[in-house]
Amino acid sequence: MPLRLTQYRLCPRSRSIRLALAEYRIDVALLDENPWEWRQGFLAKNPAGEMPVLEFDNGLTLCGTYSVSEYIAEDLSLAANTVAPAPPVLFPGNREDRAEVRRLIDWYHGKFDREVTRELLIEKVYNSMRPSGPIAPDPGVLRAVRMNLKYHLSYTGYLADSRRWLAGDDLSFADFAAAAHISTVDYLGEMPWQDYPAVKNWYQRMKSRPSFRALLGDRVPGTAPPLAYSDLDF
Amino acid sequence: MPLRLTQYRLCPRSRSIRLALAEYRIDVALLDENPWEWRQGFLAKNPAGEMPVLEFDNGLTLCGTYSVSEYIAEDLSLAANTVAPAPPVLFPGNREDRAEVRRLIDWYHGKFDREVTRELLIEKVYNSMRPSGPIAPDPGVLRAVRMNLKYHLSYTGYLADSRRWLAGDDLSFADFAAAAHISTVDYLGEMPWQDYPAVKNWYQRMKSRPSFRALLGDRVPGTAPPLAYSDLDF
Repeated sequence: MPLRLTQYRLCPRSRSIRLALAEYRIDVALLDENPWEWRQGFLAKNPAGEMPVLEFDNGLTLCGTYSVSEYIAEDLSLAANTVAPAPPVLFPGNREDRAEVRRLIDWYHGKFDREVTRELLIEKVYNSMRPSGPIAPDPGVLRAVRMNLKYHLSYTGYLADSRRWLAGDDLSFADFAAAAHISTVDYLGEMPWQDYPAVKNWYQRMKSRPSFRALLGDRVPGTAPPLAYSDLDF
Repeated sequence: MPLRLTQYRLCPRSRSIRLALAEYRIDVALLDENPWEWRQGFLAKNPAGEMPVLEFDNGLTLCGTYSVSEYIAEDLSLAANTVAPAPPVLFPGNREDRAEVRRLIDWYHGKFDREVTRELLIEKVYNSMRPSGPIAPDPGVLRAVRMNLKYHLSYTGYLADSRRWLAGDDLSFADFAAAAHISTVDYLGEMPWQDYPAVKNWYQRMKSRPSFRALLGDRVPGTAPPLAYSDLDF
């Protein structure tokens, strides 16, 4: 039986792990979970109520991006069955390089998530799925999120402009974390691509990777991405 | 010149790193920074505007708990000048053990921070320090935070009850992260110790460690901790 990943299609943390697993060509069965339901069965798996959760055949259960990404990076035997080309190193370089990778992962999975993605998902998706009836997005919150997004995209553009990949010379898990958040923002129709050409150029390279294909096919009930969402030439 | 740590006295992330550095007996100069000021000089150091920031003599700057804690753990030479007893391993055990340590760090620095500490600091400290005049704490927010805190303390009590340390047999950075948040909640007078004897017992062991001493002496303008805050027999 392959590994099982409990995730939500638009959850950026789940997406970053799906990308990493796909890069390692690790076969994984996706179990869909709706984050706004707080199901008891899911809370029994992860009492934090957060995604993703990765389950192994031997009963090992790993909760959250931090735990999963570092575990995958440490456990090279996971990728033992891969053929050439070798998968990217998630935390490449020396100690200082890895510290920079981790700083940026924290930026996207921490700050970007809190100031942009989490709020967008609540306003545009979770609140529309309430069993007691949908709540329309709050224009004040959307305005604040769009302001925050500008700062994040300016900074991402600065990184993409001055480096080959976001954390330096090598592709790293920081790129997957950033691409995961930006892909969710893009799905929700909130990416002002024309204002951030360096971000667009970097994202085009990410989007063209075979690991990205599954994400571009994702659809969730009650939402539809813009036409260019899955278009490699957007 | 010793290392320099830019931090805020009540910031739980800064506190967790101060504890780790003290355990390693690494000499560090503390630079106080007020998180609500968003000073340009600080943003130039860390464009994320988050603490702590650790600066080395050679110009290396590490931003954020994730980056700093993993760097310290990787760089054992930092502790080369330490005498017996050896400092604790921040991420002890095998791969699976380390995954559990990281899951819990994520819990405290992620979920606990978002649902409890960050909100408490905003309501009880930052809002009282506004140059345009203080804003009183919002009773609705405090009520929600206290509800969230119960869930977190129940879970922490469950861990403390069933294990020697929070992540397992060995003391780890998960204990420092948890103790850092709980120490800030305690400083702000919000710890219902009597309801959580297992948490109290575990915290007593943490509080008795020499590394904790500096935190117990912290005071910030405009606030005063309860008398028992620095008392080892609370």
